[in-house]
Amino acid sequence: MRSAGKLTVIGTGPGNPDQMTPEAAHAIEQATDFYGYAPYLDRLELRPGQTRHASDNREELDRAGAALTRAAEGGEVCVVSGGDPGVFAMAAAICEAVDNGPDEWRAVDISVLPGITAMLAVAARVGAPLGHDFCAISLSDNLKPWELIEKRLAAAASAGFVMAFYNPISRSRPWQLGKAFDCLRAILPGETVVVFGRAAGRPDEHIEITTLADADPTSADMATCIIVGSSETRVVERLDLPPLVYTPRFAEVST
Amino acid sequence: MRSAGKLTVIGTGPGNPDQMTPEAAHAIEQATDFYGYAPYLDRLELRPGQTRHASDNREELDRAGAALTRAAEGGEVCVVSGGDPGVFAMAAAICEAVDNGPDEWRAVDISVLPGITAMLAVAARVGAPLGHDFCAISLSDNLKPWELIEKRLAAAASAGFVMAFYNPISRSRPWQLGKAFDCLRAILPGETVVVFGRAAGRPDEHIEITTLADADPTSADMATCIIVGSSETRVVERLDLPPLVYTPRFAEVST
Repeated sequence: MRSAGKLTVIGTGPGNPDQMTPEAAHAIEQATDFYGYAPYLDRLELRPGQTRHASDNREELDRAGAALTRAAEGGEVCVVSGGDPGVFAMAAAICEAVDNGPDEWRAVDISVLPGITAMLAVAARVGAPLGHDFCAISLSDNLKPWELIEKRLAAAASAGFVMAFYNPISRSRPWQLGKAFDCLRAILPGETVVVFGRAAGRPDEHIEITTLADADPTSADMATCIIVGSSETRVVERLDLPPLVYTPRFAEVST
Repeated sequence: MRSAGKLTVIGTGPGNPDQMTPEAAHAIEQATDFYGYAPYLDRLELRPGQTRHASDNREELDRAGAALTRAAEGGEVCVVSGGDPGVFAMAAAICEAVDNGPDEWRAVDISVLPGITAMLAVAARVGAPLGHDFCAISLSDNLKPWELIEKRLAAAASAGFVMAFYNPISRSRPWQLGKAFDCLRAILPGETVVVFGRAAGRPDEHIEITTLADADPTSADMATCIIVGSSETRVVERLDLPPLVYTPRFAEVST
């Protein structure tokens, strides 16, 4: 039996309101109850009668359960992620909660609306580093063992994928990014291009283009997405304009 | 010396106008000359005085050169991709043209504006299959050798990445998708979840959820993005509602 309520999972994009889709904006207008990490909810301009339910960023599954409960009661619920809700964000937590939760959660009408995820925003600011085969890896070992992350880094680097790192560093995970760079230095040349993209598209944006040899983990914080090029990724220097970073559409066999 | 003109590379998103960012819509309003594959230009509502320069989808580098030439002459140029312009699309072709072109192209003020790429739109329609580490692979062997594609498929599958396939099939590339499924069947279990997402978000959308054992390459066409799950990817069946497909945020070590 379908319940009266509805749950929509949206992504605000990287934080610049001009990078949120009209579809997401429309969902925000329709909803009555908003669940999310407080800084993402702060990006919304809510009307009187629209209710914020802010929570900490470590509480995804509890938040998902609260949102599903409200929707199963008949609420018009909006679950808010930054970026795209399907990339290391709330859409998976909602599905996981439905999978393991009470039957009434399976009757909630759930929609996921895509958004601009951080790696696309960072890539756009420097050119087209994701112009060829690439992967996205979360460096958080809260939910998977570190050895699995190292295995994926090695597999991706060896096969010539460009890589985007999410969740690179936090107070409770201070060493992971440095260790990831060390793993990659054993496989990729030191001149491999690395881009640190912090808060892309927002007023406090900071973009740094460097190399794997020089990449300094302390350049990153929780709001940073890092792109590590393949051996094909190139930097085009320009006069009076920032360089362009791109990965060519063609590739040779790497061995 | 910076030239008078400007070149903006935009992505329309998957084709639903509500999934194009306001930033891209604003760039369209400002520009005078539009370069792109004809079906993508057809998505725009241009004013009198705004000029279409449509070309075939195989002609990226010629199109990039024509757009850069017009911008270097002082034009307000918009280069139009579907999806995100940085993912197997025009941003890399523009950078490549600048890299190898005349000096005056290096003086063009180039901006890339991100868009909703197909894999995010398809993922959203079924739940959160990209909820954990994933990669994007073009199956076109026009610009890279097929053996490199097989190497990447094997590396990604063995390391537990979810995969999204772009450019899966075309009249001139009829066998590649079937071969890719065969490669993966040697590594991944037959019950691995596969999603065919055609024209996500458009009126002619067609989504099919199947397994690797049953995946039929003829279910795909040029407008299809295919997501192949990892061994962790799950399907949640629901009564009276379509199933949810998701990859959990946590993972065990796969060996």
